[in-house]
Amino acid sequence: MIDKKRFEEDIKKIRVTNPLIHNITNYVAMNFSANALLAFGASPIMAHSPMEMEEIVTQSSALVINIGTLDENWIKGMEIAAQTAYRNHKPWVIDPVGAGASTYRTQTALHLIQEYHPNVIRGNASEIMALTNNRVQSKGVDSSINVEKAQNAADWLAKEHHTIVVISGETDYITNGQQREFIQNGSPIMPKITAMGCTASSMVGTFLSINENSFMAAAHAMAIMGITGETTAEKYQSPGSFVPAFLDNLYQMKDTEYSNKLRQ
Amino acid sequence: MIDKKRFEEDIKKIRVTNPLIHNITNYVAMNFSANALLAFGASPIMAHSPMEMEEIVTQSSALVINIGTLDENWIKGMEIAAQTAYRNHKPWVIDPVGAGASTYRTQTALHLIQEYHPNVIRGNASEIMALTNNRVQSKGVDSSINVEKAQNAADWLAKEHHTIVVISGETDYITNGQQREFIQNGSPIMPKITAMGCTASSMVGTFLSINENSFMAAAHAMAIMGITGETTAEKYQSPGSFVPAFLDNLYQMKDTEYSNKLRQ
Amino acid sequence: MIDKKRFEEDIKKIRVTNPLIHNITNYVAMNFSANALLAFGASPIMAHSPMEMEEIVTQSSALVINIGTLDENWIKGMEIAAQTAYRNHKPWVIDPVGAGASTYRTQTALHLIQEYHPNVIRGNASEIMALTNNRVQSKGVDSSINVEKAQNAADWLAKEHHTIVVISGETDYITNGQQREFIQNGSPIMPKITAMGCTASSMVGTFLSINENSFMAAAHAMAIMGITGETTAEKYQSPGSFVPAFLDNLYQMKDTEYSNKLRQ
Repeated sequence: MIDKKRFEEDIKKIRVTNPLIHNITNYVAMNFSANALLAFGASPIMAHSPMEMEEIVTQSSALVINIGTLDENWIKGMEIAAQTAYRNHKPWVIDPVGAGASTYRTQTALHLIQEYHPNVIRGNASEIMALTNNRVQSKGVDSSINVEKAQNAADWLAKEHHTIVVISGETDYITNGQQREFIQNGSPIMPKITAMGCTASSMVGTFLSINENSFMAAAHAMAIMGITGETTAEKYQSPGSFVPAFLDNLYQMKDTEYSNKLRQ
Repeated sequence: MIDKKRFEEDIKKIRVTNPLIHNITNYVAMNFSANALLAFGASPIMAHSPMEMEEIVTQSSALVINIGTLDENWIKGMEIAAQTAYRNHKPWVIDPVGAGASTYRTQTALHLIQEYHPNVIRGNASEIMALTNNRVQSKGVDSSINVEKAQNAADWLAKEHHTIVVISGETDYITNGQQREFIQNGSPIMPKITAMGCTASSMVGTFLSINENSFMAAAHAMAIMGITGETTAEKYQSPGSFVPAFLDNLYQMKDTEYSNKLRQ
Repeated sequence: MIDKKRFEEDIKKIRVTNPLIHNITNYVAMNFSANALLAFGASPIMAHSPMEMEEIVTQSSALVINIGTLDENWIKGMEIAAQTAYRNHKPWVIDPVGAGASTYRTQTALHLIQEYHPNVIRGNASEIMALTNNRVQSKGVDSSINVEKAQNAADWLAKEHHTIVVISGETDYITNGQQREFIQNGSPIMPKITAMGCTASSMVGTFLSINENSFMAAAHAMAIMGITGETTAEKYQSPGSFVPAFLDNLYQMKDTEYSNKLRQ
């Protein structure tokens, strides 16, 4: 269960300290993720060149690696960034977008996880299952599959890599292999908008930067995404007008409003 | 003439089956095109690395190649993707953005067309003319030139490459060199918004995935773009607010509303 | 002091001639910057491949180079573009995004400035200070530091490189090292939206294309951004809904409305 006081404290801390969050993310998500972090109170930076990875990671408070539009040039930057984060004890989160949709993505994600031990892995059910070599077919970036099976996969993955695993979905699931958290907030419109999941990962990075408990940070971040989406969907039921309203809510909603709306 | 029943059937089919559409498109258009396909009912995937092209194309129902922000690394992925689509009889569409603005773009588009035979080529008038080596100067990405001359160029191009050619404009023109279709729907505000043409190409890919008749698929896709734009412009006459409203309409409008509003 | 008549003339000239503005800019800003230029009346083109840089720069009326998501492949294109602009007397502006945040960015920006003499350098205070080797720490992309110190840095930089330097901030500062201009228009919400600064640089490029006086062009461009933002903020105080309304205003506001709202 999320402790409401600690949830509020984390939100306030982000808004007071404006932590610098380094995002190596995909072309589709970059603008929306940057605007979401800015609206919520963080300072996003987007950078991927191997030539500056050590300096940027060292200055940042957390790192987000998202493999959504992967290629060989970007992998080099991801490798140095993840290594630098690991060596300097900077918290980092990986979003294995499309794991299962290609061997290339599955293997790149697994390599980064095995070598550089992210604090959190966040994906949808099929991506998380792909990382367990369960050979579940991933239909592109989204997919609806057996929820329980996916949660078992997440538990296994969390134990195997001593990390936190988050599955985004109708109910968000956060696990360290033993402790489990469920977030009920959200809206069915959210999967109809691109980069919502990617932005959730950037939000996880934001909370990791100010909360040393990675499990709690991941749960808080997913709660922010779900509550903001649910609140937005009360007035906006179509994906176009949902986007600006979602950003407005990230900017306007107070920590107490967030904690009051939490459904677990 | 578009058959209204078949138009409605195609729309329903997309919304029921959510076809996976693989887009190798430009940085400017990616977010908007992904959101447009999601709103309308397709499942977009954006991927460009040569390392995963065969797998991604093989899983997808159609391929969209857009050369808007071309470079050497991306051409490699486009080449494998187009080749894989051609060999596996996956339908694909090319958007020769900026053909005529540089030799590099013109030649890359012509190479892909000659070697891998796209089902549809969709561009604006100057881009289509550039592909016929008519030496028409292209002013960047948009341009207004002699409509009849452009249509003759499109006819020639369609016959030369045994394909369908679409010219977007005030009136959209679809030709296979003999059969011709004109779509009157649209709004003058649309050229004031970036990535509208690119998104039209992604929409063509979407209809190609569920209709084996490429001519009909192209006409249906252009009709969707024109009707959605025209409907949106009834309430939104400025480009900023037009964008979210356009996505809302793609999401909300029923197949019968589309067929009723069709103007040919 | 901006002369209101000349300010109005520049706006009208852009809207009548729709100048082609070549942008080599970052992934985060591309869509918003393209839409802003289109809405205001320019014709943006985004291209970065070394294979087409000479042709694209030669055809364009101005060049914008923004190093926001820099890497080795893009530097090659920037180098050829800047060189071509310099040799062909095409006006160009550099936006040294994140200078100071990494040695790589600072050195790339300084190299392009020293070799190819941009007409304008536009950044925030910490980026401009970084280019003077003042060793001011840059906190990512935004930062609030001593205003006077930054203005002295801008003066020094302008004299050193015989160029115009713009610092964006609560008050925009334009200097050639001797002549100084202050623009008071703007809104505190603007730094909460990504790519606002990048778009200001693209707007500087737009005005450079139609006004040979680079100092005046830079001042006019910053006035457009500030006045549009201020006008938008009268109705929209949150960053999500601000974005479409900002684009609407760029499209709708007349030259006389701009000149009437100017605050210096």
